[in-house]
Amino acid sequence: MKAELIIIGDEILIGQIIDTNSSWICSRLEEIGIQVQQISTIADQEAAIIEALTLASTRSEVILMTGGLGPTKDDVTKKALVKFFNSELVLDETVLKHVESIFEKYNRPMPPDNRTQAEVLAISEVLFNKAGTAPGMWIDSNDNHFVVMPGVPTEMKYLMVHEVLPRLQHTVGRTIRQRINILTAGLGESFLAEKIRPIEDRLPPYIHLAYLPSYGQVRLRLSGMGENEVKIKNELIAFSNEIKHSLKDYFINDTDEPLAVSLVNLMSDRGLTLSTAESCTGGLCSHMITSVPGSSKVFLGGVISYSNDVKINSLGVKQETLNKFGAVSEQTALEMVNGVHKVLYSDYSISITGIAGPGGGSPGKPVGTVWIAVKGLKNTVSRQFSFGPLREENVMKAAKNALIMLFRLVNEENQIK
Amino acid sequence: MKAELIIIGDEILIGQIIDTNSSWICSRLEEIGIQVQQISTIADQEAAIIEALTLASTRSEVILMTGGLGPTKDDVTKKALVKFFNSELVLDETVLKHVESIFEKYNRPMPPDNRTQAEVLAISEVLFNKAGTAPGMWIDSNDNHFVVMPGVPTEMKYLMVHEVLPRLQHTVGRTIRQRINILTAGLGESFLAEKIRPIEDRLPPYIHLAYLPSYGQVRLRLSGMGENEVKIKNELIAFSNEIKHSLKDYFINDTDEPLAVSLVNLMSDRGLTLSTAESCTGGLCSHMITSVPGSSKVFLGGVISYSNDVKINSLGVKQETLNKFGAVSEQTALEMVNGVHKVLYSDYSISITGIAGPGGGSPGKPVGTVWIAVKGLKNTVSRQFSFGPLREENVMKAAKNALIMLFRLVNEENQIK
Repeated sequence: MKAELIIIGDEILIGQIIDTNSSWICSRLEEIGIQVQQISTIADQEAAIIEALTLASTRSEVILMTGGLGPTKDDVTKKALVKFFNSELVLDETVLKHVESIFEKYNRPMPPDNRTQAEVLAISEVLFNKAGTAPGMWIDSNDNHFVVMPGVPTEMKYLMVHEVLPRLQHTVGRTIRQRINILTAGLGESFLAEKIRPIEDRLPPYIHLAYLPSYGQVRLRLSGMGENEVKIKNELIAFSNEIKHSLKDYFINDTDEPLAVSLVNLMSDRGLTLSTAESCTGGLCSHMITSVPGSSKVFLGGVISYSNDVKINSLGVKQETLNKFGAVSEQTALEMVNGVHKVLYSDYSISITGIAGPGGGSPGKPVGTVWIAVKGLKNTVSRQFSFGPLREENVMKAAKNALIMLFRLVNEENQIK
Repeated sequence: MKAELIIIGDEILIGQIIDTNSSWICSRLEEIGIQVQQISTIADQEAAIIEALTLASTRSEVILMTGGLGPTKDDVTKKALVKFFNSELVLDETVLKHVESIFEKYNRPMPPDNRTQAEVLAISEVLFNKAGTAPGMWIDSNDNHFVVMPGVPTEMKYLMVHEVLPRLQHTVGRTIRQRINILTAGLGESFLAEKIRPIEDRLPPYIHLAYLPSYGQVRLRLSGMGENEVKIKNELIAFSNEIKHSLKDYFINDTDEPLAVSLVNLMSDRGLTLSTAESCTGGLCSHMITSVPGSSKVFLGGVISYSNDVKINSLGVKQETLNKFGAVSEQTALEMVNGVHKVLYSDYSISITGIAGPGGGSPGKPVGTVWIAVKGLKNTVSRQFSFGPLREENVMKAAKNALIMLFRLVNEENQIK
């Protein structure tokens, strides 16, 4: 079954707010096997709303609309609905009492405009909104199901969970889309594709593989839909095991978690501790780790050695090393990682030193050159990266790649998988 | 001039990622007086792309597309463009060399698929993409301007800033929306509104004031549009001066820069240095500072003292203080800031200690309790904050408020304004 979203809101079109509703709705629909094929974000204008409804109803069975239901004068959704469905607005007494009770609760007089909140389309089934004043509406017309909801995220979510999704699930029946997400790291999209092409070529038409790359990681999304839930599930598991097997060390998890969460859990389960010595990443790598709830069991702390003095005084990097090889070198990265390991007494340590840019580059060491070292229980690994010209991206890639290197070493040294 | 966005990407329609590109693009277009009237988010499917292009070109002069330009087989944007424009793909040698050079840099063989990245539409003007492999394209056809860009945010932004916006600005001509952004910190939106209401009430209808709040800061956006550019500009300056004057100490800048940039420039101009001691923020505050190009002139480094041992061993916090007052206390914050000041020899130092959550709260010190201290050339200030239950938000608010406190102390002690 195919669906579309019509998102009404000038504040999105001028870039004042980021639309997070759509992503949430799409994700919920996808879980019950409804495929969203278009999101149309349009202005609070009658003509635009009618055009969007007309086009969407020719393409999709289910049309979900949000926004433009407030009492202020720029909210014109209901007027457009009246025209589109050739229906009329009627006052719903239950909704009116609810709206009045909300104003009573706050001891405020109800502005007369708010009476219009209780007006619903005559042909609609009212979706009662306990989370706010504007009711939702469900309209069956020809072969389409239309759902109208307010744009306030908490109200939309309330209506979706309590009213809309149960009705849609009933309509769709039991053909649920199933999926497995495989997080990989350390191999670019095209190399990954080459590696798993033999498997991809054997996928049946009802199983789809998508590549979602981001900074050194690629999430592989294997999804399938069909009548026989158990059969699809087993096929997905079999293909995902094949993919995991063919990727070996590049596989991180299939638990829908970000890398940092897998890393913290892995180390926490084994009672391992961590410290960091960051130069060019300036704290980002530590921030990624400490963003995980419970990371205090693993992460002891770190030294941000932005200046050479801090590298020398707080981490014990030798002046001689800095003179001879420079602050961005394998030797400095190794002395940094050994230094923080010694000062903070951790099982594992990371060091990162590089030229983030825009300044500081030279022909031999251009902007984007980064050295990362990871010291573990037995081994120390170090690696040079050559990223690009963009400061923000270099910092992000350096921090993420440090986590990838750490994850691999912890995995290796603690014999998992 | 009216514009539309066509966002191509299955990963958005299944709710896997939130589309932040659209908001960024809308906001940039709005600044140069181009009004976005629709965003159509569609699947990586030829028919859907052609339909979206057809409809958009009847409604809007400018059509910006992102996504579906990668080398994997689910990226079909170029095929759709070939059909829609009845044109063909040609290999661009400059782009090919650029793509090859990127693979050379990483010392990896280029998979043959990546050759297709250098194929561009014959009728297009190539928008060279220094931030990635997929080039952008500019196509003039009938009365429409079409812009095709990759969906990767850094690449899209690079192309927008360096290629697309300058061309659009040229096309739009001189009826530019003018604006002044006034960054304020330390006063909530409604208090701010009360303070400047007398000024706001006198604004003429063609000058608009918007409030854009975010984590302890509020950006006031004063904008105006009209035939007489000089007159509007002068009026905007006059009103913004009035607002700045009435806000006094809550005013940060009117230079469109984030707080961290103003802070780094302020300190850099005066040759002042900075160090940090972060506990609950785990590196985020240092990351915000080091995100500013040139911050290495100011920022010496920091200690992330996540565990009590690091607070004691690396910062000299007394065990007695931790026992008596706890790790989240004014006393600990002060010993941390004095400690890092002593260890790193900086002019200014920040310390942050708090309970980010979800765990670690107690009735006396609930999740969201944070102590921040700032030590300056003469004075030391400390302050308690009580944020909410959400970890991510607490960390963000703590880091931002530390920067606000530091900015004020530097300002005060160095007699500026």
